[in-house]
Amino acid sequence: MIQESTFTYRPIGILNSPYSRRIDAPHQSTVVAGTETGDVALATLELEDWLDEKVLQDLSGFQRLWLIFAFHRSEGWKSSVKPPRGGPKRGILATRSPHRPNSLGLSAVELVKIEGRTLHLRAVDLLDGTPVLDIKPYVPYADAFPDSKAGWIDELDAKLGRYFAPGPRKPR
Amino acid sequence: MIQESTFTYRPIGILNSPYSRRIDAPHQSTVVAGTETGDVALATLELEDWLDEKVLQDLSGFQRLWLIFAFHRSEGWKSSVKPPRGGPKRGILATRSPHRPNSLGLSAVELVKIEGRTLHLRAVDLLDGTPVLDIKPYVPYADAFPDSKAGWIDELDAKLGRYFAPGPRKPR
Repeated sequence: MIQESTFTYRPIGILNSPYSRRIDAPHQSTVVAGTETGDVALATLELEDWLDEKVLQDLSGFQRLWLIFAFHRSEGWKSSVKPPRGGPKRGILATRSPHRPNSLGLSAVELVKIEGRTLHLRAVDLLDGTPVLDIKPYVPYADAFPDSKAGWIDELDAKLGRYFAPGPRKPR
Repeated sequence: MIQESTFTYRPIGILNSPYSRRIDAPHQSTVVAGTETGDVALATLELEDWLDEKVLQDLSGFQRLWLIFAFHRSEGWKSSVKPPRGGPKRGILATRSPHRPNSLGLSAVELVKIEGRTLHLRAVDLLDGTPVLDIKPYVPYADAFPDSKAGWIDELDAKLGRYFAPGPRKPR
């Protein structure tokens, strides 16, 4: 039997966000309709000690950043899940659910400002304490495909209204 | 001293692509100007044995997928790098360079079709043999921000022409 290679990553920062429980967090960072306040959540991300502040240079001109993070509260994975927006079970890789084979998360958050080793972020759908593994600049020519067809999600949106998603509860 | 938590992931598939060397691969999947053929590269991704084919269900309606992958050829990281498109050194997290603290990559590729456990992909900028850690559906409302400001990249584009990036060499 061949030893499978695995890849190990160490958090570059831990997120401080107003969402302490999974039920409180919005299902995508851009969805805020349905919050009690309607506010877009503010969050901060502090660079871990093992990293030189220099890694953040030139990042402040970007309006959005990708965060790749660990869904640290996810326990195990499933081949298919029932998405919160309704409908039948879907193959796990056709969803953004945390219960994935490798529970990695991806979120495009707004960068408000950087102060020293602290990033101030907006439009964050991540839980407090989320370990962030990578930050990348959001670059429209590589990342933005507004007309990209989105399979079962488009179908549900056509029925239920575009951007429909269960609203987040009150941030705490 | 507190034991830092780390996160370990096992590839869900290995990519077969026409780019066998780093110098051959385009720097972003959407950039093909500069290839000898001008063709958009085709690639395949085969699901690893430890995963049930069911994980792919409902994925075929999506036009684009996110691949989160390991830059497996990257050796070590740097606080700042000189980007291929020119200009001074930039903080590593303000670039998409492989030489990052956690060498994770992110690419929005086109899904051509799924046959059994094999995904046929287009517009792929990844090297042959790249270990893929996660596949997510591309969902415009969460992922597409065509007007998002892109700091130093916008500045260089204003000087050098939009979408400028070093062209890939001939796929092999």
